[in-house]
Amino acid sequence: MRTPIDPELIARHNASLERDLKEDYQHLGAVLARRGVDLDEVTGRIRRFAVAIPSWGVGTGGTRFARFPLAGEPRNVFEKLEDCAVIQQLGRATPTVSPHFPWDRVEDINGLRDTARSYGLGFDAVNSNTFEDLPGQLSYKFGSLTHTDRRVREQAIAHNLECIEVGKKLGSRALTVWIGDGGNFPGQQDMTRALERYLESMHPIVAALPEGWRAFIEHKLYEPALYTTVISDWGTSFICASQLGPNVQCLVDLGHHAPTTNIEQIVARLIQFQRLGGFHFNDSKYGDDDLDTGSANPFQIFLVFNELVDAELRGAPGFAPSYMLDQSHNVTDPIESLLESAVALQRAYAQALLVDRKRLREAQEANDALLANRALHSAIESDVEPAIRMARKLNGGAIDPVAVYRASGYRRAKAEQRPQELTGKAGIV
Amino acid sequence: MRTPIDPELIARHNASLERDLKEDYQHLGAVLARRGVDLDEVTGRIRRFAVAIPSWGVGTGGTRFARFPLAGEPRNVFEKLEDCAVIQQLGRATPTVSPHFPWDRVEDINGLRDTARSYGLGFDAVNSNTFEDLPGQLSYKFGSLTHTDRRVREQAIAHNLECIEVGKKLGSRALTVWIGDGGNFPGQQDMTRALERYLESMHPIVAALPEGWRAFIEHKLYEPALYTTVISDWGTSFICASQLGPNVQCLVDLGHHAPTTNIEQIVARLIQFQRLGGFHFNDSKYGDDDLDTGSANPFQIFLVFNELVDAELRGAPGFAPSYMLDQSHNVTDPIESLLESAVALQRAYAQALLVDRKRLREAQEANDALLANRALHSAIESDVEPAIRMARKLNGGAIDPVAVYRASGYRRAKAEQRPQELTGKAGIV
Amino acid sequence: MRTPIDPELIARHNASLERDLKEDYQHLGAVLARRGVDLDEVTGRIRRFAVAIPSWGVGTGGTRFARFPLAGEPRNVFEKLEDCAVIQQLGRATPTVSPHFPWDRVEDINGLRDTARSYGLGFDAVNSNTFEDLPGQLSYKFGSLTHTDRRVREQAIAHNLECIEVGKKLGSRALTVWIGDGGNFPGQQDMTRALERYLESMHPIVAALPEGWRAFIEHKLYEPALYTTVISDWGTSFICASQLGPNVQCLVDLGHHAPTTNIEQIVARLIQFQRLGGFHFNDSKYGDDDLDTGSANPFQIFLVFNELVDAELRGAPGFAPSYMLDQSHNVTDPIESLLESAVALQRAYAQALLVDRKRLREAQEANDALLANRALHSAIESDVEPAIRMARKLNGGAIDPVAVYRASGYRRAKAEQRPQELTGKAGIV
Amino acid sequence: MRTPIDPELIARHNASLERDLKEDYQHLGAVLARRGVDLDEVTGRIRRFAVAIPSWGVGTGGTRFARFPLAGEPRNVFEKLEDCAVIQQLGRATPTVSPHFPWDRVEDINGLRDTARSYGLGFDAVNSNTFEDLPGQLSYKFGSLTHTDRRVREQAIAHNLECIEVGKKLGSRALTVWIGDGGNFPGQQDMTRALERYLESMHPIVAALPEGWRAFIEHKLYEPALYTTVISDWGTSFICASQLGPNVQCLVDLGHHAPTTNIEQIVARLIQFQRLGGFHFNDSKYGDDDLDTGSANPFQIFLVFNELVDAELRGAPGFAPSYMLDQSHNVTDPIESLLESAVALQRAYAQALLVDRKRLREAQEANDALLANRALHSAIESDVEPAIRMARKLNGGAIDPVAVYRASGYRRAKAEQRPQELTGKAGIV
Repeated sequence: MRTPIDPELIARHNASLERDLKEDYQHLGAVLARRGVDLDEVTGRIRRFAVAIPSWGVGTGGTRFARFPLAGEPRNVFEKLEDCAVIQQLGRATPTVSPHFPWDRVEDINGLRDTARSYGLGFDAVNSNTFEDLPGQLSYKFGSLTHTDRRVREQAIAHNLECIEVGKKLGSRALTVWIGDGGNFPGQQDMTRALERYLESMHPIVAALPEGWRAFIEHKLYEPALYTTVISDWGTSFICASQLGPNVQCLVDLGHHAPTTNIEQIVARLIQFQRLGGFHFNDSKYGDDDLDTGSANPFQIFLVFNELVDAELRGAPGFAPSYMLDQSHNVTDPIESLLESAVALQRAYAQALLVDRKRLREAQEANDALLANRALHSAIESDVEPAIRMARKLNGGAIDPVAVYRASGYRRAKAEQRPQELTGKAGIV
Repeated sequence: MRTPIDPELIARHNASLERDLKEDYQHLGAVLARRGVDLDEVTGRIRRFAVAIPSWGVGTGGTRFARFPLAGEPRNVFEKLEDCAVIQQLGRATPTVSPHFPWDRVEDINGLRDTARSYGLGFDAVNSNTFEDLPGQLSYKFGSLTHTDRRVREQAIAHNLECIEVGKKLGSRALTVWIGDGGNFPGQQDMTRALERYLESMHPIVAALPEGWRAFIEHKLYEPALYTTVISDWGTSFICASQLGPNVQCLVDLGHHAPTTNIEQIVARLIQFQRLGGFHFNDSKYGDDDLDTGSANPFQIFLVFNELVDAELRGAPGFAPSYMLDQSHNVTDPIESLLESAVALQRAYAQALLVDRKRLREAQEANDALLANRALHSAIESDVEPAIRMARKLNGGAIDPVAVYRASGYRRAKAEQRPQELTGKAGIV
Repeated sequence: MRTPIDPELIARHNASLERDLKEDYQHLGAVLARRGVDLDEVTGRIRRFAVAIPSWGVGTGGTRFARFPLAGEPRNVFEKLEDCAVIQQLGRATPTVSPHFPWDRVEDINGLRDTARSYGLGFDAVNSNTFEDLPGQLSYKFGSLTHTDRRVREQAIAHNLECIEVGKKLGSRALTVWIGDGGNFPGQQDMTRALERYLESMHPIVAALPEGWRAFIEHKLYEPALYTTVISDWGTSFICASQLGPNVQCLVDLGHHAPTTNIEQIVARLIQFQRLGGFHFNDSKYGDDDLDTGSANPFQIFLVFNELVDAELRGAPGFAPSYMLDQSHNVTDPIESLLESAVALQRAYAQALLVDRKRLREAQEANDALLANRALHSAIESDVEPAIRMARKLNGGAIDPVAVYRASGYRRAKAEQRPQELTGKAGIV
Repeated sequence: MRTPIDPELIARHNASLERDLKEDYQHLGAVLARRGVDLDEVTGRIRRFAVAIPSWGVGTGGTRFARFPLAGEPRNVFEKLEDCAVIQQLGRATPTVSPHFPWDRVEDINGLRDTARSYGLGFDAVNSNTFEDLPGQLSYKFGSLTHTDRRVREQAIAHNLECIEVGKKLGSRALTVWIGDGGNFPGQQDMTRALERYLESMHPIVAALPEGWRAFIEHKLYEPALYTTVISDWGTSFICASQLGPNVQCLVDLGHHAPTTNIEQIVARLIQFQRLGGFHFNDSKYGDDDLDTGSANPFQIFLVFNELVDAELRGAPGFAPSYMLDQSHNVTDPIESLLESAVALQRAYAQALLVDRKRLREAQEANDALLANRALHSAIESDVEPAIRMARKLNGGAIDPVAVYRASGYRRAKAEQRPQELTGKAGIV
C-alpha cells in the first residue's frame, strides 16, 4: 500500500498524544458506564463508520465571483486520488472516492482503478454532470434530461449510461444523478412537461443499472436555476423514485432546502418509506453554501444522525444509506477540511449512539417534552472526542490528523511537484 | 331569498357606475380583440368562479398577543351566515360557507341548513378541530390523531366522524382535516411513529366518507407546533393521501410553507399526480400570516392561477380543486376583507385566462425565456377590473361592493343588534 | 429567607451526586490544565453569572390557536414570585425577576418588593405593555406610542411613565419598551411618520428615567404586525437609541430576526458602537418561537456568548448587558424550562470562556480559517457540565435541579393550593 | 450621434403601432381624468426617468456551476458601449453607463469618454472591484479593504483612488464600493476588528472624493462570504456612512437581504435619515439571484417606488437617489433583458405616480387598513403601458423596443463581427 505520508511521522505524533488519550478515554468510559453504556462498543461502531470523498472536493472551490486557487492543488484525477489517500491514511474514515464525469474522465479506466487500489481506496457512487458544456457538444444551457429538444435529452441520457459503464469498471455500485435543469423566470418552463421529460429520460438510465446498483436522485431547491428547479424538493424526488423503480432512491444534500426546513424530518420520512439513498454532507447558513460539515451548525448534523442511528438500531427495513461529503473549499486546504468534516460526522454519529433511547422513548410516550429534549442534549454535551481519537488510532490513523498533515509538509511539496498557473481566475458576475 | 342589504341601494349604486363601466368594458374588449381574446368568454368564466367563505372568517381574528374585537361581530353561526349572505349578495363569488366544528355546533342542524338556504347559501367542506380543548374532554395539548395515548386518538377520530355526519346533513361533500399535532423540541416526538399513528387514525375516517365525498389533508410547516409538525409539507401530505385512498387529496394553504418555497410548483405537481384537493387562500409575508388574499403579494396568486387555468384548459385528469378563503382579519372589517379577497381571486383568474398560452408554449419550447416571462406579465398588466365588475353586475351583485356595504350601515346596525362585551381580550404571550 | 423547596431534600440529592461530580470536576480540571486553563477561575465566573426571570414566564404560554394550562400555575404576581423563588433556590442563576405591567399591577408595591426580598429575589428591568387593551382604555388595535391619534400615544406614554414609577419603588434600574405597533398591509401605515411619532413619544419617557437608569428598545421583525413593524430591526433600533440619548440602548431578542440573519454579528456591532443594552434569551426555528434557550440550536447561543465573553475579556467600553429569559412554555412545566434555560446560558458562557482566544486571534490574523473555526469548536466539544454543577452547588443550589424539583412534589402541591378553571381556553384563529 | 439600429426601422415599427397606442392612451387619459389625474403630467415624469446600465450587464452572466456564453457578446468596453447604445436608442430610459474596474480599464480614457458621447451616452457611478485577483497583485482571497494584512488593504485603497481618478475623466460623480470581504466559518474573522479596518480604509478614499461626488456603500448579507460579511446589512452600512461623512450614502441592492426582509421599509428609513444613495435594481426569489427587474416579484418593485415617489412628491430633504440596474443575464439576451428591466422600473414608477396620495393619507390617518391597501392596489391594477409607450415614443425611442431589436438582426450581425471561443466555460463547483 502506498502511503503518501510517512508512517513514522504518524507514529511519532501518536506516541506524544497517547498518554492523554488513554486517560481521557478511561474517564469517558467511566462516565458512560454510569449510564450503562459500553464505550468500547461505541468505539467499535465509530471504527466502522465510513464516508466517501468526492473527487472534486480535493480541489479548491469558488463562488460565481471568484476562485482563489491553492498552490499544490491536484491537476487531474490521479493527483486527486493521491490527496484522497492522504485523507484516508490519516483519518481512516474515508476509504472510498466518488468520481465525477467528465471531470475525471481518463483513457485507462483500469489504470485508475488500480491506482486507487494501490492507495487502499475504492470507488463509491459515480456522478454524472449535465450542468456544464463540453466543446463540440449540444449545450445544456436550457436543460439536460428535461430539455425541450430531444437531441439534448438523448445526449444527457447517453452520458449517464457512459457513467454507469465506467462505474462498473471502477467497482461502483451506484449512480448519482443531479441535474441543474429548471428556469430563471416565471413562465420560462412548463413545470409539468419538464417533469414528464425527466421521468421519460430517467427510464432508460434506470433500466441500464446493473444488478445490485442503485440510482440516487438528488433534489435541490434552487441554483443554478433561480426560479424553478425540476427536482426541487424531497416530495418530487420521492414521487420520481417511486415511479422509476425499487432501486431508485432519494439523496439528501443538507444545503438543498428552503430556510427553516426541518431536514431531519425529511430524513425520517425517507427512511420510513424506504427511499433514503444517502447523503451529500456539508453545512450552510444561507443557501447551498457547501461549508465544512458541522462548522456552522453542528446540532443539525447530530439531529440527522439521531434519525440514522435510530433506524440502524431498530433495524428499519431497507435502511442502507450511502454517505458522501460534498463541500466547496474556498478558503481552507481541502485536505484539512475533509479530514475535519469526516470527524464531524463521526462525532455526530458517536453522540447519536450515546442517546439513551429507552429513556427517550419513555419521555416521548409520556409527552415529557423536557426530558425528551434533555435526552438528546445529554448526548451532545458529552465529550466524545476520546472515543473518536481512539477509533482512529485503532484503525491505524493519526490521533491528531491535521497536526500530522501540517507537520508532513505535504502541501508545500505538492506546490513544487504540481506547478500550475496560479492567477486568481476571474469569476462570473 | 333573504337579502340583508337593501337591493335598492345596490341598484342605485350600480346605476351611478354603469356608464363608466360600460366604457371601460368596451375598451378592454377592443384591446383583447386585438390579441384574439373574446372578453365575453372571459367574463363568463369569471361569473362562474366561486370560492367558499370559512364561517370563522367573518369574526375578528387575533394573534397570540391580543385580539381586538369589532363591534357588531357575529356571536354564533346564524349571525355568521347572515354576514356571509352580505358578502354573497354584494360580491356574487362566494355561494358557499365552510363550517367548523365544534365552533359551529348547533342542536338543530336542519335549521342551520335551512337558514343558509334562505340566504341562497350552501355548505362547502366541513372542518374538524382537534387543536383546542373542550371542557370535559381529553386534552389535545400533546396531539390529537397522532397522540401517544390511544384514547385521545379515538376521541379525535370520533370528532371527525361526527363532522362527516353533520356535513351529510348540511350538504357538504368534503372533510378538511388539519391537525396541529407535532412537537416544540427536538426529541419531543418520535416523528416516524407519529406519522404511523396518523395513518392509523385516518383510515377509519376515510372509510366513513360517503360516496362522492373527498377528504382533504392540509399540511403546514409549523405553528402551533414549533419544531416539528406531523403533516409538515406537501411530500408528507402526498404520501399520506396516496396511502389512504383515491378520495383523499392534498389541500394547499398558501401560508403553510417555508420561506422562498415555489408554491406554484407544488400546485403543478399535485395537479400532475392528481392529488390537488383544493386551497385555503390568503396572503403572507413571514409565516402563516393569514392576510387578505393578494394584499401583500398579488403576483403569487396569479402564478398559482396560471397553473390552475392551464390545468383547466388542457383538461388535466382528475382536476377539480375546491377553493376556500382562510384568513385572519385582525385590523379590518371581515366582510370587507372577504369581499376584496374574492375579487383578488377573480382578478388572478381573469389574468391567467388572458395569458396567451399558444405564445407561451412556443416561447417555452424555444427556450425563449424573455418572451415566455413576458407572456405572463402581459396578462397581469392588463386592467381586468372592467371584466370583474361586469361579471359581478351580471350576476346580480354590486359593481363596487365595499362602497355599497359602507353605505348600507350594516355593521353599525349589527353593533346594536349584537351586543357583546367588547373588552380587548388579553392574548397569550 | 423563605425556601419553597425543603433544603434537606436538596442536601440529600446533592449528597448522592457529589462523588461523581467531584471525579468529573477533577478530570475536567486536568484536561483544561493541559490547555493552560484554570477550571476554578471558570467556575468562579459561572457562579457570578445571572439572568433575570420574566414574571410572565412562570405561567403557561400558548399560540393563537390554543393555550393548554397547567394545573398549579400561578394566578397572580405573588404566586409568580414563589415560583421564581423555586427556580432561584434550586438553580442559583436567576436572582432577579423582570415584572410586566399591567399584568403584575398591585396596590401594595412595597409589599411586592418585600415579598420578593423574603425569597432573596430582586427586580430587574420593568416591562411596559401597550400591545393589548384594558377595559375602559383607548384601544391599541392600531398602535400605541406610534398611533395616529395623539390621545392614544399619550395614554401609552403615561403607562410607560407609570412603569418607571413602579420600577423605582421595586428597585429596578431599567425600562424595556417593546411595542407591537406596525401594519398588516402594504399602505396601511406611513412607515416614516410612524417612526417620527415613535421618537416623539419616546422623548418624554427617556426624560423621565431616573439617574442611573437605562431604557431598552426591543426590535422585532414581525408579529403581531404582519407586514411592517415600526421598530423592526437593529438598524432602526440603533438609530432611535442614538437619537434618544446615551442611556437608551438596544435589546436583542434572539427570535426577532429574519431567517438566516447572523445574530452574533448584530451583537458584535452593538457592542462595538456601545448600544448593547441586553438580551431576551430563547430559541427558535421558524419565527419568534420562544422555545427554551438552547433547545433547538445550542450553537447559536454559544456564538452569541463568544462575542459577549470577548467583549468582557477585552474590556469593551460601555459593555454592561442585561440578561433576561423570554420564553413561552406551551408544553413543559415553566419552572423546569426556566431552570434548564438558565443552565443553557451558563453552558454557553462556560464554553465561550474555554475558547483559547490567543490561538483564535493568531488564526484570525493568519487567515487560518480552519484553525480559527476549530478554536470555537474545541470549546463546545468539552464537557463543561461538571463546572456548571460545581458552581451551582457552591452557590447553594441543587446539583440536579430538575430532579430535586420533581422529587419535591411542588407542582402537585400547588395544583391543590391554586385552584382555577382549567378548561383549555379557546385560542384565536 | 451614432445609431447602431437603423432609425428607419424604428420609425416603420412605430408607425404600425401608433394608432392603437393613441387609442389606448386616450382611454387611459379618460380613466385617470375621472380620478383627477393628468396623464400628460405622468407621461412627462416617465420621460424624465433614467436608470444607468452597468457595463458588465451587457455580457452573459453565469453561476458557480457554469456560464453559457451568447454568440455576439461584447468582448471589451467599447463593444459594451455599443450594446448600451442600442438599449438607449430603443428604450430611451438609460442614458448613462456605470463602468467597472479593472474590467473596463483602457489606456485611452478620453477615447472611452468620447466613444460614449458619440452614442449619446454618459457615465454614472464608477465601481471598484476588490473581490477577484489580478496577476501580479496581492490576493484578495481573505479580504481587501478589511484584510488583516495592511499591504493588501493599501492595494485595495489605491485601486479605489484610481477608480476615482478615472471617474473624474469620464464625468462620473460617484464611487460605488462593494466588497466581498467576510468569512465562511464561525471564528474565521474577528467581526469587530474587520469593521474597524473597513472604516480605517475608507477614510482616505472618502477624503479623495472630488467636490460634488458621493461614495455609495453597498451592503450584502452573504455571498461570496458564506458565514459573515463585513458590510452585511443596512444597519452596518448606515453607521459606516454616518461615520465617514455627509457625502457617503447607502446603496440598496434588492437581492442583498435576508428572506422576508421588508425592503421598502429600509428604503423609507434611509430616506428619512438622509442616507439613501441609490439602488442596484434586479429581482430575486432565493438569494442574490440577479434576475430581471420585476420578473419574479413585480409588486416588490412597486412598493419601493411607492416610497421613492412619496419622497419625491413631499420633497424629502437630501433625496437624490441614483438608479442602476444590476442583473446577471444567464439565459436571455442581455440587451433584451435590460430593455425590459428599464421598462419594469418605469412601470413601477408610473404606478406609484398613480397612487391617490391624499386618499392614502386619509386612510392611514383613519387606520382604514383596507382602503389604504386598496389605494396601492388600485394603482397597480391600472394599465399604464400606454403612458410608458407614449413616453418612449416622445423621447424618440421604439414603441416596442424588443420587437424592433429582434427585427434589426443586431445580435446575429455581432455574432459575426465579434468572433470568440464559444465553449461553455467550465464553472466552479
